[in-house]
Amino acid sequence: MAAERTVAERAVVLLSGGLDSATALAWARERGYQCFALSVAYGQRHHAELAAAARVAGSLGAHEHRLMHVDLGSLGGSALTDQGFAIPERAASEAAGAGIPITYVPARNTILLSLALAWAEVLEAGAIVIGVNAVDYSGYPDCRPEFIAAFTQLAQLATKAGVEGRTLHVEAPLLRMSKAQIVREGMRLGVDYALTVSCYQADVQGRACGRCDSCRLRREGFEAAGVPDPTRYA
Amino acid sequence: MAAERTVAERAVVLLSGGLDSATALAWARERGYQCFALSVAYGQRHHAELAAAARVAGSLGAHEHRLMHVDLGSLGGSALTDQGFAIPERAASEAAGAGIPITYVPARNTILLSLALAWAEVLEAGAIVIGVNAVDYSGYPDCRPEFIAAFTQLAQLATKAGVEGRTLHVEAPLLRMSKAQIVREGMRLGVDYALTVSCYQADVQGRACGRCDSCRLRREGFEAAGVPDPTRYA
Repeated sequence: MAAERTVAERAVVLLSGGLDSATALAWARERGYQCFALSVAYGQRHHAELAAAARVAGSLGAHEHRLMHVDLGSLGGSALTDQGFAIPERAASEAAGAGIPITYVPARNTILLSLALAWAEVLEAGAIVIGVNAVDYSGYPDCRPEFIAAFTQLAQLATKAGVEGRTLHVEAPLLRMSKAQIVREGMRLGVDYALTVSCYQADVQGRACGRCDSCRLRREGFEAAGVPDPTRYA
Repeated sequence: MAAERTVAERAVVLLSGGLDSATALAWARERGYQCFALSVAYGQRHHAELAAAARVAGSLGAHEHRLMHVDLGSLGGSALTDQGFAIPERAASEAAGAGIPITYVPARNTILLSLALAWAEVLEAGAIVIGVNAVDYSGYPDCRPEFIAAFTQLAQLATKAGVEGRTLHVEAPLLRMSKAQIVREGMRLGVDYALTVSCYQADVQGRACGRCDSCRLRREGFEAAGVPDPTRYA
């Protein structure tokens, strides 16, 4: 068991500052990992999320928290990074028709995982942890179990660790949970969701709009879990 | 045949400014792709390479050339990004013992390909082209054919294009060529190698040291190809 290790294995945990990644960090801590939290500023509009990430990393005892910058905004193509798109305030599936919401950021999780992979190599970490979820966000191709499996395969081939026969686990503990299950798991793990920001267009104080897809899913998650919603709305 | 298409298919071509990626760009152009060259400043010491990339993109008729920044240097772990390492001036295989040179940048090609993937999605490109080579650099895990195959698989699963049934090719035309074969192919394709910089520690004018691994492999390539070496040495 992870908790019985004398020297804690290291894990790089991708931490956006939202509800899911905070829960994933708490999960990794409970598993006994020494957690290295990685946040990536990829040109997203919601900088309030990154401030939330720092608070969450501190409150959940991350050993270290780093922020990297990648200018995905310069490539365009997403409502989350491109000022030319309006944030949709209807259900993603309705708004997008074909199934992939315009809030999808091209190749985002591939990029996030590859940056985590670089840090994991340097740290000789045994795991990368990512809070992706296939249930609520099934319109995003890079939130599917088969994507995580393919990245795990890639990580073995891409790295010194893999060549030397060490296994690098890609852990996606929330992959098959509903939002309500994630909230319940986080409450059990002691996550303070008041610190987190999920809104696609939070204001500078980190207050949520209450109307975007992400706000809607989050609020429904608290309702379904029977947990009071601690979100600060604008 | 690519050359017979009425509307050219787009390709994102990773362009470092070195010998290999310049050849890969020339190859993509000959295949009839409309080429979108992508250079990534990842904290490498040799900024002269990026200036070379701009010259090469221009001379080989890239439709567009973009530079993205990712601060891999902040993660450490490589002689190419970390000032704490000395650049080795012996053969990589000798210097490293276990086989992976210290000039290896953790997860570099995974990151470069994932950034190319993001742009390819936005452009609806049909291919990503990367000048990796498994022969001379066999010590780097992310230059192997199985790595490229795994990324191809990942790209299908990660993207909107893949979900919608379009194929995104990951082309690595130099994968199984020796340096001499690459030089001969580039000469045939009209690459002006005087514009390229391969040196791990080129000076600000882009002049090569003539002593590092990369210089040695490059010089040996020109010799073996029977082509005069146009490299400007310091």
